[in-house]
Amino acid sequence: MKKMILDIDTGVDDAMALAYAAGTKEAELIGVVGTYGNVYTEQGVENVLNILEMLGKTSVPVYLGAKHGMEKDSFDRLEVSAKIHGQNGVGEVDLTPAKRVKETQHGVDYIIEAVKQYGKDLVIVATGPMTNLGMALKKYPEMAKEVGQIVIMGGALTVPGNVSPFTEANISQDPEAAKLLFESGTPVIMVGLDVTMRSVLRLSDTDRWRKKGTIAGEKYADIVDYYINIHDEIAPYLHGCPLHDPSAVAAAIHPEFFTMLPLFMTVETEGPSVGRTIGIADKIREENPNVKVCINVDTNKVVNDMCQTLEALFTDSK
Amino acid sequence: MKKMILDIDTGVDDAMALAYAAGTKEAELIGVVGTYGNVYTEQGVENVLNILEMLGKTSVPVYLGAKHGMEKDSFDRLEVSAKIHGQNGVGEVDLTPAKRVKETQHGVDYIIEAVKQYGKDLVIVATGPMTNLGMALKKYPEMAKEVGQIVIMGGALTVPGNVSPFTEANISQDPEAAKLLFESGTPVIMVGLDVTMRSVLRLSDTDRWRKKGTIAGEKYADIVDYYINIHDEIAPYLHGCPLHDPSAVAAAIHPEFFTMLPLFMTVETEGPSVGRTIGIADKIREENPNVKVCINVDTNKVVNDMCQTLEALFTDSK
Repeated sequence: MKKMILDIDTGVDDAMALAYAAGTKEAELIGVVGTYGNVYTEQGVENVLNILEMLGKTSVPVYLGAKHGMEKDSFDRLEVSAKIHGQNGVGEVDLTPAKRVKETQHGVDYIIEAVKQYGKDLVIVATGPMTNLGMALKKYPEMAKEVGQIVIMGGALTVPGNVSPFTEANISQDPEAAKLLFESGTPVIMVGLDVTMRSVLRLSDTDRWRKKGTIAGEKYADIVDYYINIHDEIAPYLHGCPLHDPSAVAAAIHPEFFTMLPLFMTVETEGPSVGRTIGIADKIREENPNVKVCINVDTNKVVNDMCQTLEALFTDSK
Repeated sequence: MKKMILDIDTGVDDAMALAYAAGTKEAELIGVVGTYGNVYTEQGVENVLNILEMLGKTSVPVYLGAKHGMEKDSFDRLEVSAKIHGQNGVGEVDLTPAKRVKETQHGVDYIIEAVKQYGKDLVIVATGPMTNLGMALKKYPEMAKEVGQIVIMGGALTVPGNVSPFTEANISQDPEAAKLLFESGTPVIMVGLDVTMRSVLRLSDTDRWRKKGTIAGEKYADIVDYYINIHDEIAPYLHGCPLHDPSAVAAAIHPEFFTMLPLFMTVETEGPSVGRTIGIADKIREENPNVKVCINVDTNKVVNDMCQTLEALFTDSK
């Protein structure tokens, strides 16, 4: 069975991705690395530790990763992130503080070590800025050839971005890291707004979680309801909340749910369209592009697989 | 058999599209409308008349269309167009002047009349700016529901444009017309740089035309060799010339050669990225998008089908 590492900035949709990755029978979640974006890195790591304990998954180690972009000195959380994910990142829902703490090894070193240990059996799913992956590639370039698969939630190829008309939030935080990743030759599946906005979750879905009668089911319903409600305000045309980060987990374990376009990709790192993820025209006729861009999806399969996985997990949780 | 109208600015690759449309057994070329772009409209119409006579296809009527963009007062041919297509639009090759002349009806009125007459049996292939189509839609909005299919060579969704990083040449000439077309609900197949740069023609291909021993075969080889040679200079990574406009004819008669993404599309008409063809985020979950964007192609099938069609046509020509 494939080994999976999550590299996340938890975040409501990251929390869903985390439960999905922890609960799926299609891969073994071997570690979680925290990053910045939806929240500050420390808050995100705390959220992961609290959630994993609530889900009874305390054997999965949690690492602290990058706190800001590769070519930046600091990170200031956007106000809109607090609005969308809640001040605490998990929809203002109180979670019981975890008894255990994060590992002492840095997340980037953990990623490199895991690549060396598991090679082609390893899939890394990154649902925040690509900073940890960029740092790992700089430190250990062989990773590009050795890792099995990297799946990112990030970018927008066929629709405009959500931070500017050109860039999506995760890419916009660290376009240099994303460009390095795309151009490194690493096998990447890009799960961008092209597909993540297509799959939505509704209150009727979270209601089934609440009815499980477990703490986990109830808390998750509360967390995601916050996210659904805020999307009714900021994106009413969706009639639900988009499954950004869970779609990346889905693409990792069920690539057959998606239509993918093989394409050599780059990221613009300056100018009016900074953060734009776009194909490289000069390489359009070259064979075996390292990036596969998800451009369409069987949304029912994504929603159903995630919901079934979460419902089973919540049934067995506290 | 489907009726086909070509709406073209001839142009070397338009000339290939014209021969392809005139020679295919998959559709009946019932008329040609000239437009501006690669050349001035009058020059393009003259080229079409000369070519059709050389190919023995003098029963196909030729109409004069728009001479400049819908919201513009004039059109100045770009210097780069003269460089790529030759001053006369057909690679500086001398063609025998046609004996017949263009029709007196305006191309836009001809398009509207044909839509009324043939309805769902009509496919219009536009390989220049979308001005004639925009004008026709303004004059006869019912066309959006009545026409069988419109196929355009234009736009770029997954790669940068060729006029700016955001826009492709045909769209850039009249973004307003293209936006009107996309948002009208008309069934459109967009054949953009995403696929047209993938299929290339080489000197070894045109050499087979020259060996046919006909005037048409020889002249076409000369015209296209000019285009191949100029691309060796401006786009050496292609190792040949791209099949921009012929790809639109291919998509009209052999849609199965292409991978298409159904998407509601728009065109930006102002700002730094004017002319950008992009999906409409708010409509990403709506069903039955009117636009299908070609995002990948079996290039061998396009090249082979076009070459076989042209070779048969040249054998039977003067």
